Amino acid sequence: MKIGLDILGGDFAPKATIEGALLALKLLSEDQKIVLIGDQDIAKQYIEQAGEDPAFFEYVHAPDNIGMGEHPTKAIAQKPDSSISRGFQLLKDGAIDSFASAGNTGAMLVGAVFSVKTIPGIIRPAIATNVPKIKSGFGILLDVGANADCKPEMLPQFGLLGSLFAEHIYGIQEPTVGLLNIGEEEEKGNMLTLGAHPLMRENNRIRFVGNIEGRELFDDKADVIVCDGFVGNVVLKLAESFYVLTRKKGFNDAFFDRFNYEQYGGSPILGVNAPVIIGHGISSPEAIKNMILLSKSMIESNIIEKIKSAFN
Amino acid sequence: MKIGLDILGGDFAPKATIEGALLALKLLSEDQKIVLIGDQDIAKQYIEQAGEDPAFFEYVHAPDNIGMGEHPTKAIAQKPDSSISRGFQLLKDGAIDSFASAGNTGAMLVGAVFSVKTIPGIIRPAIATNVPKIKSGFGILLDVGANADCKPEMLPQFGLLGSLFAEHIYGIQEPTVGLLNIGEEEEKGNMLTLGAHPLMRENNRIRFVGNIEGRELFDDKADVIVCDGFVGNVVLKLAESFYVLTRKKGFNDAFFDRFNYEQYGGSPILGVNAPVIIGHGISSPEAIKNMILLSKSMIESNIIEKIKSAFN
Repeated sequence: MKIGLDILGGDFAPKATIEGALLALKLLSEDQKIVLIGDQDIAKQYIEQAGEDPAFFEYVHAPDNIGMGEHPTKAIAQKPDSSISRGFQLLKDGAIDSFASAGNTGAMLVGAVFSVKTIPGIIRPAIATNVPKIKSGFGILLDVGANADCKPEMLPQFGLLGSLFAEHIYGIQEPTVGLLNIGEEEEKGNMLTLGAHPLMRENNRIRFVGNIEGRELFDDKADVIVCDGFVGNVVLKLAESFYVLTRKKGFNDAFFDRFNYEQYGGSPILGVNAPVIIGHGISSPEAIKNMILLSKSMIESNIIEKIKSAFN
Repeated sequence: MKIGLDILGGDFAPKATIEGALLALKLLSEDQKIVLIGDQDIAKQYIEQAGEDPAFFEYVHAPDNIGMGEHPTKAIAQKPDSSISRGFQLLKDGAIDSFASAGNTGAMLVGAVFSVKTIPGIIRPAIATNVPKIKSGFGILLDVGANADCKPEMLPQFGLLGSLFAEHIYGIQEPTVGLLNIGEEEEKGNMLTLGAHPLMRENNRIRFVGNIEGRELFDDKADVIVCDGFVGNVVLKLAESFYVLTRKKGFNDAFFDRFNYEQYGGSPILGVNAPVIIGHGISSPEAIKNMILLSKSMIESNIIEKIKSAFN
């Protein structure tokens, strides 16, 4: 198994990414290799400084970096030696089994769709994030940013993608699916959700439980909640700001602690032909470690093959 | 001044509404009359039981009630003796100066648009809510549910409506306006926000400060934040669920306390030819009291005339 990691991605790279890789290393077996993609001289230097042996990792030299503010499509095309471009080339060639980066989200999305491509039968991939549940554990929310505008037909697909992820990565048996909406009744909603609701109800590959209101995101009504990427992104960032506030104010609570992005490491792009994970820009070593462990879970669970057969 | 109150609206009516009216009464001068609209016999009975004099109020008998689950347009048409239908009739006739209800939101919206009508020049009215700011005070978020789908041209109008409300009701000098979006850059967004951004930037009647992300809702970047009614409703309910959670968990904090809907009493429908306020379904007496005080502020400030001239 080869887990690809962009060591140049994120606000605190390469220090945080390399420290995260070192943390993950201790939890992996010998045949689970982390491939560090980026400036290999800097990487080896950091590893030696940390008193570790650079030989535990594999390296692919990619000295160029795509910045957070760069235009995704242009940057991918114009920077073939960037860590993100090289990462996707390796993923496409089968030289790595997964690719993770805490860098430019748009470049990760464009790179994934251009290189390993969308799985046949899927209209558009979606970015998924986990949502802590008040009782215990996590649910899945998607899309949180890949598709600012969606067609109704995309939402049942997001429901199926999220269900497969919930089942095979989180071990949730028979996950239920809800549609994020502005009322419980089927006739409530905007044009998108009014169109999506009957499609979701009639789709027998998902366990649709109806509409979920903003106030029900954290309760047990649905394991997987679908929405367009605009709404999902606003919800994700709003929830994060609440978590940050509770921390700033010194509130300690197991539920709010589960909002901590560091604990789950990143958001997978679901619907492309390989495991791809986007980390938070402010990823700490702990977050990077968990992003690597999530990569491992996605490879081991064979989630991509399971998605392919579900959409076949 | 005559402040109209639907005493049958809300989950705890008529007890909570009448108790709220009694609380408000103590804060009003003699010429500020509360007009209780609903079953007048029940109202007088409650007031006497509370040891107060029914003569302090005016009454309009409307024994019928529009339930929370009823279809707004049908209910308004088929129940002329309902408290909401009678309330809007009185408002249209000028027999009351404002109308407030914690009942069926849809019926309040339909009733407002059908009776007192949308102010000329305004495409669609919007429901506004206040948003606590971390530093201090409140901002305004709109639309939070009147228009699930919006056209770009509506958002600068929401910005102007919110600005006038912020200035004349909350006393915010030169309020700034932000567009709720999924990135800071102008080129980020969905079709709605991509279309709205340049219209807002070019509109010289509002102080546009650009895009606001979900995580910035509570900071000081903008006093007025605009979005479509779908996104706003999800945000409102999500924020409310966070507040409820912090309360349940016993967290006490001045910022989170400002989420308490009871303190501000209700959400105005901005853009119609009279002050109309929708209360939370679970309105307590305290919330009803504050809804009456907000009605009074809207009448005293002459906000409707100010909106009319701004859109003239």
